[in-house]
Amino acid sequence: MMESKLTQLKNLLGEVSDLQSAAALLSWDQQTYMPPGGAEGRGHQLSTLETLAHLKFTSVEIGRLLDELTPYAETLDPDSDEACLIRVTRREYEKRTRVPTDLVADFARATALAHLAWTEARAENNFSKLLPHLEKIVELRRRYAECFAPYEHIYDPLLDDFEPGMKTAEVRAIFNALRPKQVALVRAIAERPQVDSSFLHLQYDEQKQWDFGVEVITAFGYDWKRGRQDKAPHPFTQSFGIDDVRITTRVYPDFLNTALFGTMHEAGHALYEMGVDHALARTPLASGASLAVHESQSRMWENLVGRSLPFWERFYPRLQEYFPEQLGKVDLETFYKGVNRVSPSLIRVEADEATYNLHIMLRLEIEIGMFEGTIRVKDLPEIWNSRMQEYLGVMPPNDTLGVLQDIHWSSGLIGYFATYALGNLISLQLWERIQQEIPDLSDQIRRGDFTALLGWLRRNIHRHGAKFEPQDLVQRVTGSKIDPAPYIRYLNTKFAQIYGLNGDIIS
Amino acid sequence: MMESKLTQLKNLLGEVSDLQSAAALLSWDQQTYMPPGGAEGRGHQLSTLETLAHLKFTSVEIGRLLDELTPYAETLDPDSDEACLIRVTRREYEKRTRVPTDLVADFARATALAHLAWTEARAENNFSKLLPHLEKIVELRRRYAECFAPYEHIYDPLLDDFEPGMKTAEVRAIFNALRPKQVALVRAIAERPQVDSSFLHLQYDEQKQWDFGVEVITAFGYDWKRGRQDKAPHPFTQSFGIDDVRITTRVYPDFLNTALFGTMHEAGHALYEMGVDHALARTPLASGASLAVHESQSRMWENLVGRSLPFWERFYPRLQEYFPEQLGKVDLETFYKGVNRVSPSLIRVEADEATYNLHIMLRLEIEIGMFEGTIRVKDLPEIWNSRMQEYLGVMPPNDTLGVLQDIHWSSGLIGYFATYALGNLISLQLWERIQQEIPDLSDQIRRGDFTALLGWLRRNIHRHGAKFEPQDLVQRVTGSKIDPAPYIRYLNTKFAQIYGLNGDIIS
Repeated sequence: MMESKLTQLKNLLGEVSDLQSAAALLSWDQQTYMPPGGAEGRGHQLSTLETLAHLKFTSVEIGRLLDELTPYAETLDPDSDEACLIRVTRREYEKRTRVPTDLVADFARATALAHLAWTEARAENNFSKLLPHLEKIVELRRRYAECFAPYEHIYDPLLDDFEPGMKTAEVRAIFNALRPKQVALVRAIAERPQVDSSFLHLQYDEQKQWDFGVEVITAFGYDWKRGRQDKAPHPFTQSFGIDDVRITTRVYPDFLNTALFGTMHEAGHALYEMGVDHALARTPLASGASLAVHESQSRMWENLVGRSLPFWERFYPRLQEYFPEQLGKVDLETFYKGVNRVSPSLIRVEADEATYNLHIMLRLEIEIGMFEGTIRVKDLPEIWNSRMQEYLGVMPPNDTLGVLQDIHWSSGLIGYFATYALGNLISLQLWERIQQEIPDLSDQIRRGDFTALLGWLRRNIHRHGAKFEPQDLVQRVTGSKIDPAPYIRYLNTKFAQIYGLNGDIIS
Repeated sequence: MMESKLTQLKNLLGEVSDLQSAAALLSWDQQTYMPPGGAEGRGHQLSTLETLAHLKFTSVEIGRLLDELTPYAETLDPDSDEACLIRVTRREYEKRTRVPTDLVADFARATALAHLAWTEARAENNFSKLLPHLEKIVELRRRYAECFAPYEHIYDPLLDDFEPGMKTAEVRAIFNALRPKQVALVRAIAERPQVDSSFLHLQYDEQKQWDFGVEVITAFGYDWKRGRQDKAPHPFTQSFGIDDVRITTRVYPDFLNTALFGTMHEAGHALYEMGVDHALARTPLASGASLAVHESQSRMWENLVGRSLPFWERFYPRLQEYFPEQLGKVDLETFYKGVNRVSPSLIRVEADEATYNLHIMLRLEIEIGMFEGTIRVKDLPEIWNSRMQEYLGVMPPNDTLGVLQDIHWSSGLIGYFATYALGNLISLQLWERIQQEIPDLSDQIRRGDFTALLGWLRRNIHRHGAKFEPQDLVQRVTGSKIDPAPYIRYLNTKFAQIYGLNGDIIS
């Protein structure tokens, strides 16, 4: 009886998942192969698919099945696929059905207009063009958050869309612990002689860059039978189901890092999606646990593997074979230091490991301030610039290189930025655990053998999909909730070595 | 009041169109870029989209709007977009709602199984593997046809799915007039010395073949801002809306014709879809009038333009520049004759202009015979082989090269084949008309100027989309219904010249 209701629920969720996968393919195509003429029609198609998926998911029928199945779920092992499916679906259903349809429509319209305004404002270095749109978005997000009253903090419902179950107070505590350490590290590094990275800015054949990236992620375990790689102006990973997870990469002819680390980053996201248990296919559980956990995977492969010395002991000779003219005379240590160069900069997406989180914290503080009412939208440029000076010691010469650089706010993505930094922290918590369980991990990486690492991630993270909330998952795997200490240890050790710092200054 | 109901109808039809365009993109991706792992999920996604599109189109709401709008449509100019939209939609609605849902589902299952069986039967040269599936399909198509009783002929409803309004008796009369003339022509050619085409089977660089094809269809007027070309094992054209119409091509390294004429053929289809009036976007009218009219466009660009002497006077020197080694010593006349070589062969898709229609007639006669009850499915191989001998003078050595060669029947596509031949006939009716209205067409082609030709097709055919039924459209443009005489004249003149025939024998 309950089994048949569960089957009904799965069939309905399967249709929602199919519509979402179809929309994902339309979006992937839009960013890779669609001719410009297709833009208008694609807008209609995506809007229709997304509306239908929303209507189907929030249908009375699914609500009734969830009501009937919830008592049954409570009799099951709470970690079973079935109990998790019912619990996670119910949670999402209740969130989505709390929001009035007209608010959803208003928000869709406002973000469409704001996106256009942002494009213009950025091109013209004119924040005032975006201002009224951003004020509208903040107002609509506030109304959205109010749908979930009572809450501990008005920012909680926004954060919860990206990190289920996470609270503003938790993120704030984590970042408060992290901030002074990262600022101190960046300042200490700034006083040391800079490392050379000029060789990264030579001319590099694009096809060879592509081929080297393919070689690396194939070694990581990226499964080409279940994915592919294409070029896109803004790289992303898109899943159309567990067995079709595609990545995109951009290649610059005069800067090696972009394709090199971008490819590893996206492969990290893809390995996660490809590793979800097939039993969860076509359900809301067939994805990552949260954006932060997702980012922990991409950053792990990009940074903890891809920017590590053991990795380059194995792969640098290969890279030199691809580019003998450019790198033949650059030794391993110089190359390793070069790709790990720390240099406070204006643009988040170009930031190095030591400064990246500071960009995030600045954005999170501004977002929370806007919702607490302590920061007015019109003051954003000034606040942005003063925090940049305070945290990173750099001052944007204009708003295009400052507050206007990111697409997120004009797209209505408020509550999103924190996940990038949280992902970094989680990656190190997992890494310390992995090093305990695979003591010779460095040697394996030095041999180009990633089997044990990927196997560990599959067993402990990937296969669970979205069964567990992020804090719960991290706790299960590492024994503690999200904690900045391992990341601070990692940064201090790594950059002390690269920049010859005195450990006392920064610990 | 009626305007608001019309708007409601258009909105609903727009959603159906969006779902169909999304399904089209999923199908395009399946045939171009999808990794093998995506197959299972893609099946689910396509099935969900197609089911939703069907349910939305056959909804009670659309039925009610059509009932309300039909009297209004009768007050409008019958050629107006609105009157045509209501009429064509109502016709399609009534067809689709006549068929019981369980029959639709049975047919979907039967064709899925039959497709698998066909793949095996063809690989193993074993017709008996396909036999029970084909019997089932014929039975289900018979039940489908019965949904439309009373009919003049049981094959009419099947034909109508591809050629709206066309009757079996009409097609039969056309083919009966055509058959003896084509058989006589092929026999006369067989008695003449064969032309040389060995140079078409040399090694041709694939990228250069691709580039030459791009050059040609760019000159035709294919709009790269509203389309693109990709490789696919079985070339096709797919529209995702009037401003995104993509073609696919396959390239053989050792046979020039495949990419050369395939690219022109698909561009012909695409030019049609790109030329539909934007006022018809996102409605059932935003497509071709029928498969035959579509084929008239593809065959016109492929054969009447692409296999003509004036075309090669302009483009052969370019092709020689691409392939000086292979073609430098082949003169224009030899090349022209080579690409027009007539040679009765076993396989339809490889057939030349003179023999192609005979392949079609054989299939049509067998289809009609199966539904009239004069041909049993189990006798197909024998009947196939004896007709091949009769019409083309060749005998398939096995069923793989005979009755098992085409995918259509196992996919349930019965009533489809005739459209290929009808398209050839229409292309010549249009061509004769065009030559009257553009007397210097040959000179224009000789200069590589296709502007007037494309403009004529846009004005007379393309912009109307599916507003008119095929016989009606052909009548409007040429003054008569589909008529084989112009095509016979064309074949006789062209091949008399190429093969040095005595005109009396064949006229």
